[in-house]
Amino acid sequence: MSAGNLLVAQGGGPTAVVNLSLLGVVEEARKSGINRTGKIIGALHSIDGIMDENFIDLGRERPASLRNVAMKPGAALGSCRRKMAEEDYGRIVDILRKYDVRYFFYIGGNGSMHTVYKVEQIARSVGYELNAIGVPKTIDNDLAYTDHCPGFGSAAKYFASVTREIGLDVESLPPPVSVIETLGRNTGWLAASASLARENDGDAPNLIYFPERVFNLGSFLSDVSDVYDRWGRAVIVVSEGLKDKSGQYLGGVNARASRDGFGRDLPGGAASFLAARIAEKLKLRARSEKPGLAARTAVEYASSVDRKEAYLVGQQAVRAALKGKSGIMVTLERAKGDRYRCSVGEAPLESVAISEKLLPSKFINTKGNHVTTAFQKYLLPIVGDPIRAFAELSGYRLAKKASTRRSTGRKIGKH
Amino acid sequence: MSAGNLLVAQGGGPTAVVNLSLLGVVEEARKSGINRTGKIIGALHSIDGIMDENFIDLGRERPASLRNVAMKPGAALGSCRRKMAEEDYGRIVDILRKYDVRYFFYIGGNGSMHTVYKVEQIARSVGYELNAIGVPKTIDNDLAYTDHCPGFGSAAKYFASVTREIGLDVESLPPPVSVIETLGRNTGWLAASASLARENDGDAPNLIYFPERVFNLGSFLSDVSDVYDRWGRAVIVVSEGLKDKSGQYLGGVNARASRDGFGRDLPGGAASFLAARIAEKLKLRARSEKPGLAARTAVEYASSVDRKEAYLVGQQAVRAALKGKSGIMVTLERAKGDRYRCSVGEAPLESVAISEKLLPSKFINTKGNHVTTAFQKYLLPIVGDPIRAFAELSGYRLAKKASTRRSTGRKIGKH
Repeated sequence: MSAGNLLVAQGGGPTAVVNLSLLGVVEEARKSGINRTGKIIGALHSIDGIMDENFIDLGRERPASLRNVAMKPGAALGSCRRKMAEEDYGRIVDILRKYDVRYFFYIGGNGSMHTVYKVEQIARSVGYELNAIGVPKTIDNDLAYTDHCPGFGSAAKYFASVTREIGLDVESLPPPVSVIETLGRNTGWLAASASLARENDGDAPNLIYFPERVFNLGSFLSDVSDVYDRWGRAVIVVSEGLKDKSGQYLGGVNARASRDGFGRDLPGGAASFLAARIAEKLKLRARSEKPGLAARTAVEYASSVDRKEAYLVGQQAVRAALKGKSGIMVTLERAKGDRYRCSVGEAPLESVAISEKLLPSKFINTKGNHVTTAFQKYLLPIVGDPIRAFAELSGYRLAKKASTRRSTGRKIGKH
Repeated sequence: MSAGNLLVAQGGGPTAVVNLSLLGVVEEARKSGINRTGKIIGALHSIDGIMDENFIDLGRERPASLRNVAMKPGAALGSCRRKMAEEDYGRIVDILRKYDVRYFFYIGGNGSMHTVYKVEQIARSVGYELNAIGVPKTIDNDLAYTDHCPGFGSAAKYFASVTREIGLDVESLPPPVSVIETLGRNTGWLAASASLARENDGDAPNLIYFPERVFNLGSFLSDVSDVYDRWGRAVIVVSEGLKDKSGQYLGGVNARASRDGFGRDLPGGAASFLAARIAEKLKLRARSEKPGLAARTAVEYASSVDRKEAYLVGQQAVRAALKGKSGIMVTLERAKGDRYRCSVGEAPLESVAISEKLLPSKFINTKGNHVTTAFQKYLLPIVGDPIRAFAELSGYRLAKKASTRRSTGRKIGKH
């Protein structure tokens, strides 16, 4: 391997910790001395930036500034939503060669892993020496071959915290139904995560619905009705990716109904759709909350374990590349045993790129409306920090007095 | 004034600091010695709790526990949405008399202030000695006769923070439009608050729309188009209370379109409606975020100034009552001058109860799509803490290289 330059880019949707992976790459590159013989290049707006040769010299950033940048929401280098054409991969290799890039690190999810895979394959086939490594990142937690994905733990903590907080609001002010929509278009990992909000029976979330199960409105309304009858309230968490038996997004059903008027489907909206159905069919006051992007930008709620692991995978990518590894994605491997220990491993990009990890059945209860304890055992250490708990009044009841001495019995004015 | 008991209740929607007002009442009552001669009674679920004589003895709560409870989201005593009947007010006076309540503190917004007003009037008219005082609380900031309302500063900080964070996400990953819906059904105070997110031209929020202005879809789309042309992205903040010229909520327009299919209006939805219009008319990828209740429960974002002031109004209510005041709401009065100083005052409940403070025209720009600097000057000290700022990369550009030495020119496989 010749000395040469390093290039790092960030693909796909940001997470609350995505810039810690960037920091891990840059700090490890500096530590290893790559920056003494070559440059540490950052591509602005991901593949778009590579194509346009829109590069910055990360080696010149002050170490302290980089550490601050690592805490910001949004991808610090910028990301993109480019639809890759087949010829793009070869073009990327051309540009990497032009800039003498010998280490290529791409921080991203499934789509990005596919890109690194293709770039690595082409470089190899044309005999260009390149160590290309994928750094996992996704709030959706749907990358295979890794115990979990950096970015997921923070978004999970967000939804668990917010669900608990909203639960306390709903409890204090009946009536009584709130439907919270989580991110996660194809998988239920984030919807499931809200389950950590619950400490006692009756706590939010009372019900959770996953895109891994076909959504049935009848069972849903029956579930909500049961919860309401028992607790006088219901906090329900739904994935934005819920689909009915015809394979349509629930928001899409809502959208189709309004398409005639406006000609176009509405984006998202499962929670809003379901709140309307609850109001209509169960005659309950129901509202919906859809934090949306706030769930992946809220650094206030980021998980400290997630922060560490996001850094770790970036750091490990550089270490692996320097050992001559290429064509792999860094993974997180959980040690067996009760105490949570997580180390880094690797998986071939070829396998990662074609997989999507759904929430497994063992993590969904038999009724399909909440999680199992196995899921909570899986999730708890990833979220790391406890979900903030709140004190309650002891509530010493006063005895009721027998009767009123006399009635005022007077009315004044009009309301 | 005979010695007697004190009763406190919380009405309307919770805020992130509503329990600090409760703490202010209870701690001041203890300090004043009311608890040596009488009880400090809390009504569970507000007026419902009074009607049902569902009371707890707050004097028995441990001081440290109360301080912890003061930090929880949701009304610690519970609230209610009771529609008051004219005879209810007299019934409340009967019950206060039955429990020998001589001090009545009601923490709430316009509706609650009306209730205290009526109760105080009836007590007075039947010769029952009662000191009834309103303690202001609302995220909406729509109570008149007070510079601002406890609860507003924290929700304002929430929307400013989340708008900034989402802005960074959108900036890092074009394309490029996010519409954020704020709470505030009748007034634009909270929508306006998101303006604090902006430090530089082009920062989020690019546009803000208020219920104080009739919403015009054509001007809106033209505004969004202008912003997009200039910045390549747009973060737009809209109040949930936006209405078109026929007086219909925007979410309502959306709802009417889908009413035939499902028989009922959807709740809220201005942001989702507008994101769909942007996608349809401007052919831009647009999404919507609606944090909803999260905005009033997110204690992580609570303003330290708001916390202090929420405590202060509770404390002052007790002090005023002990001086023989009744039929007033405690207010916050801002001293003239550049340095922010806020003291407590009072306003007659009779006046407060019939007013709603809209966002004044001096705080809305002439185009009706953002705030004025006068508004920011008003808001900044109320929010108190700086909106969390984030570091950016210095971004030392690498010079582009002239040409590629040779082209790989090879394709492999299929995407």
